[in-house]
Order: sequence, then C-alpha cells, then structure tokens
Amino acid sequence: MACVLRHVIMTVTAVYIGGGGDPSKQKLNCVKVNGSKSFVAAKMGVLRQDHAMPLPCTGGVDEDVLEEHLRQNIPRRKQMVDLYRHGEMVEEGVGYRQTVVIRSYEVGADKTATIESLLNLLQETALNHVWMSGLLSDGFGATHGMMRNNLIWVVSRMQVQVDHFPIWGEVMEIDTWVGASGKNGMRRDWLLRSQVTGIVFIRATSTWVMMNKETRRLSKMPDEVRAEIAPWFIEKYAIEEESPEKIEKLDDKARYVHSNLKPKRSDLDMNQHVNNVKYLRWMLETIPDEFLEKHQLSEIVLEYRKECGSSDVVQSLCEPQFNENIGLNGHTVSSQILQGNGLLGAINQKLLSYIHLVQTKGESKNEEIVRGRTTWREKKHGAKLFPS
Amino acid sequence: MACVLRHVIMTVTAVYIGGGGDPSKQKLNCVKVNGSKSFVAAKMGVLRQDHAMPLPCTGGVDEDVLEEHLRQNIPRRKQMVDLYRHGEMVEEGVGYRQTVVIRSYEVGADKTATIESLLNLLQETALNHVWMSGLLSDGFGATHGMMRNNLIWVVSRMQVQVDHFPIWGEVMEIDTWVGASGKNGMRRDWLLRSQVTGIVFIRATSTWVMMNKETRRLSKMPDEVRAEIAPWFIEKYAIEEESPEKIEKLDDKARYVHSNLKPKRSDLDMNQHVNNVKYLRWMLETIPDEFLEKHQLSEIVLEYRKECGSSDVVQSLCEPQFNENIGLNGHTVSSQILQGNGLLGAINQKLLSYIHLVQTKGESKNEEIVRGRTTWREKKHGAKLFPS
Repeated sequence: MACVLRHVIMTVTAVYIGGGGDPSKQKLNCVKVNGSKSFVAAKMGVLRQDHAMPLPCTGGVDEDVLEEHLRQNIPRRKQMVDLYRHGEMVEEGVGYRQTVVIRSYEVGADKTATIESLLNLLQETALNHVWMSGLLSDGFGATHGMMRNNLIWVVSRMQVQVDHFPIWGEVMEIDTWVGASGKNGMRRDWLLRSQVTGIVFIRATSTWVMMNKETRRLSKMPDEVRAEIAPWFIEKYAIEEESPEKIEKLDDKARYVHSNLKPKRSDLDMNQHVNNVKYLRWMLETIPDEFLEKHQLSEIVLEYRKECGSSDVVQSLCEPQFNENIGLNGHTVSSQILQGNGLLGAINQKLLSYIHLVQTKGESKNEEIVRGRTTWREKKHGAKLFPS
Repeated sequence: MACVLRHVIMTVTAVYIGGGGDPSKQKLNCVKVNGSKSFVAAKMGVLRQDHAMPLPCTGGVDEDVLEEHLRQNIPRRKQMVDLYRHGEMVEEGVGYRQTVVIRSYEVGADKTATIESLLNLLQETALNHVWMSGLLSDGFGATHGMMRNNLIWVVSRMQVQVDHFPIWGEVMEIDTWVGASGKNGMRRDWLLRSQVTGIVFIRATSTWVMMNKETRRLSKMPDEVRAEIAPWFIEKYAIEEESPEKIEKLDDKARYVHSNLKPKRSDLDMNQHVNNVKYLRWMLETIPDEFLEKHQLSEIVLEYRKECGSSDVVQSLCEPQFNENIGLNGHTVSSQILQGNGLLGAINQKLLSYIHLVQTKGESKNEEIVRGRTTWREKKHGAKLFPS
C-alpha cells in the first residue's frame, strides 16, 4: 500500500514540476516539491492523480488556457473514496459518508452550529454523493440523463429533526442515501452522528422531483434517468415513515408578518434561485427574539410550492401553535393537564410549534413559495443569544 | 506504519463498543464497528484516539453527562497534523497549512467562491492554526495568557488580493502564519493556492491588536502573551510591504447610501459581535447591481475603527473612484489617454475602485465602524450574475 501511494505521488510530482505558469509562481511549486513536508497531501496522494492535469510547457501561458487548467474535473466514473472531502461510499457502495469538522463561521454566538449551516452541510453531502457516483453533469446535482432531457431537481419536502446541535470543532459523520418516492420522485435521507460516540444528532429526509428547465413545469421521470438512479435506491429511512401531517396555509391574520423582503445577489444559488436556506432564515427571522432566546429548534418541516426568483418581493408570516395536547385554540385538553401539571406546567414541558408561510407578494395575487412548521424545545440552561 | 494505525483503531474500537447511549442509538454504533467499512475513518485513526472519550458504561445515561462527553476537547499541546481538517504545521512547525475543497454553498450563481466564503476560510484557518498550536483557550482565538489578562483579539486592518476565484469543487491549499506588527500588534498572512497547480489565487494580510474584554479599550501586549506568541512569528509577507495608503473618510455627500441596516441574530459571532464578513456584505450591497454584474473583485482593504454590537443601526456609504491614472474628479490625466486609447479605453482597461464607509447612525453623532476600499476588474467573458 505504501509503495502504491509513493508511486502515485512520484507520478504527480513529475506532472507538477513540468507545469508552466509564470516564474514567480513557479517558485512556490518548487518549495513544495522539494520540501516534501506535506504530510496531508501525501496522505491524499491517491486522489491527486485524478485531479492533476499537466499545464502546457511553453514559456508563456495564455490566460484562458491557464484558467481552464486551474479547474478540477468532475469525475466521470464512480469513485469509492474522496480523501479531499473525507468522503467515501458506504452501504455496499451506494450510500455516501462524509466526515466534517464544524467550522468557526458555522456556529452562532452560542458556539453551536446554526441550523442554516447544518442545512448547507446536508446539501453539500448530497451533491458530493452525486459527484462521487459519476452521474453528475455540469448542473446542480443533475445527472447526464437529466441534462439530455433538460431537467433539474427541485425539492418538494424537507424534514429535519435535531436532537443535539454540534459545537465549534466537533467532528461529525454525515451519512446520506437515496430511495424511491412514488413513481416519479426520489427520497434523500441523512443521518448526522458524532464521529467520536456514534450518537445521532440529526435525522433528515427530503423528497425531490424533476422540473423542465425551460417550461418550469414538473416532469415525469424519463426512463433513461430512472435507469441511472434506480440502482442507487435503498430501502432505509432516517425518520420513521408516518403519513405527513399537512401544514395549514396561513393568511393575513397571522400573528407575525415580515413584508417587503427582497432576495440579494448573495442569496442566489447555482440554479439562479433563492437558496433553500434563505427561506428558512426568512421564517426564523419572523419569530420574536424573546422566543428564540429561550428556545432551541427541535424539528423543521418545509413544503415547497414554487420557486423564488431574484426579482420577487417576499412576505414571511408565522403563527405560534401550542401542540395538539395542550388544548389552546379549541383543541383537546392535554393529558399533562389531566395529570395535574396544570396548563403552564404542560406548556413548559411540551414542544412548541410555529406555522410558517413564505409567499411572493404580487399586485393582484400572492403566490406560496414554501409552507413550514418549526418545533421548539426550551433551552436547558437558559443560554442567551444576546448577552446583556 | 500500517501496524501502528491498526493498533490505534483497535484501541478506539474498544472504547467505542464500551460506549453507552440508548439502545436504539447503540445499534448504529454496532453497524459501524462490525462493518469495518470506514476507510476514511481508518485513515484518520491517529487522531481519533485524541478525541475519543469513553462514555459511562452504566445502563442509563444522564443527559448532562452525555452532553459533556459528546464534545471534542481543544488540544492543550501543539499538534503537528489534524487529519480531520486536512491541516498540518509547516514552516518548521510554526506555520499552518490546510487543504479545503470549495463547497457547493460557498459559491454564488456563477459557481465561483463568494468573497464572503473566502474571508470565512481565512478566519477558519487562522483559528485552526491557533487550535493546533496548543495556545487556544476557550475564547475566539485568544491564548491562555490573554484569557488570564481578560484580553480578546480585534482586527485593525485587513487586505485581500484576489487573482483568481476558485470554483465549486476546487481543491485549495491555504497557508497562514503570523509575525510581529509594531510593539503591541500581530500580523497574520495567508496564501491560497490551487492544490493541483500550486498557482496562487489569493494573498491576504491582516493586523491584530488586543482589547480588554470589560473596558473595551485597546491594550498593550502583556509580557506573558508575548512569550506565548513571539516564538511563532516569522518574517514572511504574503503581500509586499508598502506604506499603506490611507482610506479617506466619506460623508453624507457619498454617491450611494444604504441606511437603517440592522444586524441580525445570525450575523453575530462567538465574540457576540457582528461578524467581519457582514461588514463586507454591507459594503458590497451598496454598490449598484449594474456595476457588480460586469466586474469582479480584485482587492479589498478594510480599516476597522470600532466594534458593532447587535443593537446598532448601521449606514453603508460608498463612492466610485477612477484610479489615479484616469484623471476624473480633478486628478491627473491618464497616461493611457495620452497614449491614444481615449478615456473610455482607459476605463475599460484599468481597475476601478470604490471607497466605503460603514458607520453607526446615532441621534447625536455617527461613529465609524470600518472604512474600506474595493478594487475591481472587468469580467472577461461578461458572465452575468442575474441571467435574464
């Protein structure tokens, strides 16, 4: 094994030294090749060959040629290990696992990972799974067959359950895999575990359908796409299947309303749409600070209805809900109360929810972008987000 | 070497199986231990032992004990390699190098890394450098000696030069190191290179001073802190030293003004302040879209004046500047024009700059938070951020 690694590194070094570039930049190459200090790079030698592309050996280098050679290629065949990303295929080669360390800018003022960062990591591992599969075309997770049919993925539902929030520096292991969802959809699940203890921190599931890139209409799954992705499907569920409770639609009477929200350049993703994480941020920012200071997110359900473009003007509404056992708003009375804990006791112990709606605010009509439900638990030690 | 690795993994596996947790969660542990599929985890076995802490082996696990054991410890001694983060000490053990892959959510609509993501990576590698050094206390990059003296780091100046923006999936190598800056300050530099070609994409330098956490006044560097950090100083510069040109202060007459900006919960960092990256975003959002669509950032200089708290109301001003050769606003006439390229030719070829000011807007007076200068080059292929 050691010999194989060494051989690969030597091969690459040859490419490397032969590389062009301007003389001042070449110096940096030399330092590295001669220094042979790069323990991490040596560890990752196996992959380096895949990525390395010789630069033209002419004296002067054309800027455009250089630009092209600076970039990594998306692999065209299935890869089992991606040492650069700490990624590997698991579940007999159809599931993907990646180890990540929670970064300093992924945590909030309380040093725990923000929910936005966690959703970003879900998206990242999903795309890396496709990247490793050899199916990724140039698009945002689309397969070669999807590209030929002018199709893109759109998410229709997302559910995330958080038992623990990881903290800055924590090593997490993220597993993700896909399965069938009805005739034309795909389910993608995730489990986030502490790498040290194996304890599950977060479970998530999502369903995806295909949309025609031009007509923006949902599409059936073409046979050639099914042939590409069905071999990857497994029957395994991060969250126990239950018939999902529909989220009711809020109207103008919602308790909290933020209007006139405008997507910014930095909110757009590679599909030129407002990033999913932005919707969640709009939802969370509509919940009063006093509530957020004392509660921690426990679950999110998002039901996507319509894409949001860069020129839309958006409104975010939310309405607090006591859970079904609590008995406000005409619902049945909590068993907790019957057991003598009283209404306040029940509220303190129970999870609390908010119902959300993010919609475009048009002149003649509004259009739903996403409905959501967030469920919250009381913070244990009364940690404050805004210290005095 | 293989034997050593194997030994460590076996040791850890024993800890792992002995670990508590509830029965449903234990199942996941077993899958992993039996499966022995985790190639990446095996590669990282060396570090796993450092992080692994046995859980109590009692049947039931107390939630608080569990929480405590879930977390990783900050190392108390210098580490040479961090395989989880692809980090290692270089420059004879005093500099730090980390390999990162540009993630899907770190790029914008044009698939290149956003400047905000790049600044986040600079912050991340700086903190990981301190983490590896064994000097990190519980604070946000503060050393043990700083904690004893109630001191935190504050950045006073930051300069970033971008030759190329990395794209999604690109493997980058980030080097960072520190040096002396005057009597009481520290300089921190960075180089970002393409891992494949060694070509430098980004150079950055910053200066840091210490502030008393309670009084919020700048502080001299105490001898015990100097003794901690001075052995790490090296004389090497990512950007050639030149006497930095002062950034002029803008006033109400600035061409573009965004007012009434309010920090959000999600903008606060572990020091309970608005994250540096947010300042930059406020600056960039004040530049007109038509300009941003056609230009790419080439350099940023930020001069920090005052911290911004969560309750401040902020104003962002900016003023376009043609560079000193162009000759608008009463400056000297460009040599380009004299050479017959005409004014428009000169503007097209030259870098363009904006001067920025972010300030708190008080009732009686305004207070500067940060001054900035951004320099731009024309996009080569007219890539559009907002496709039609």
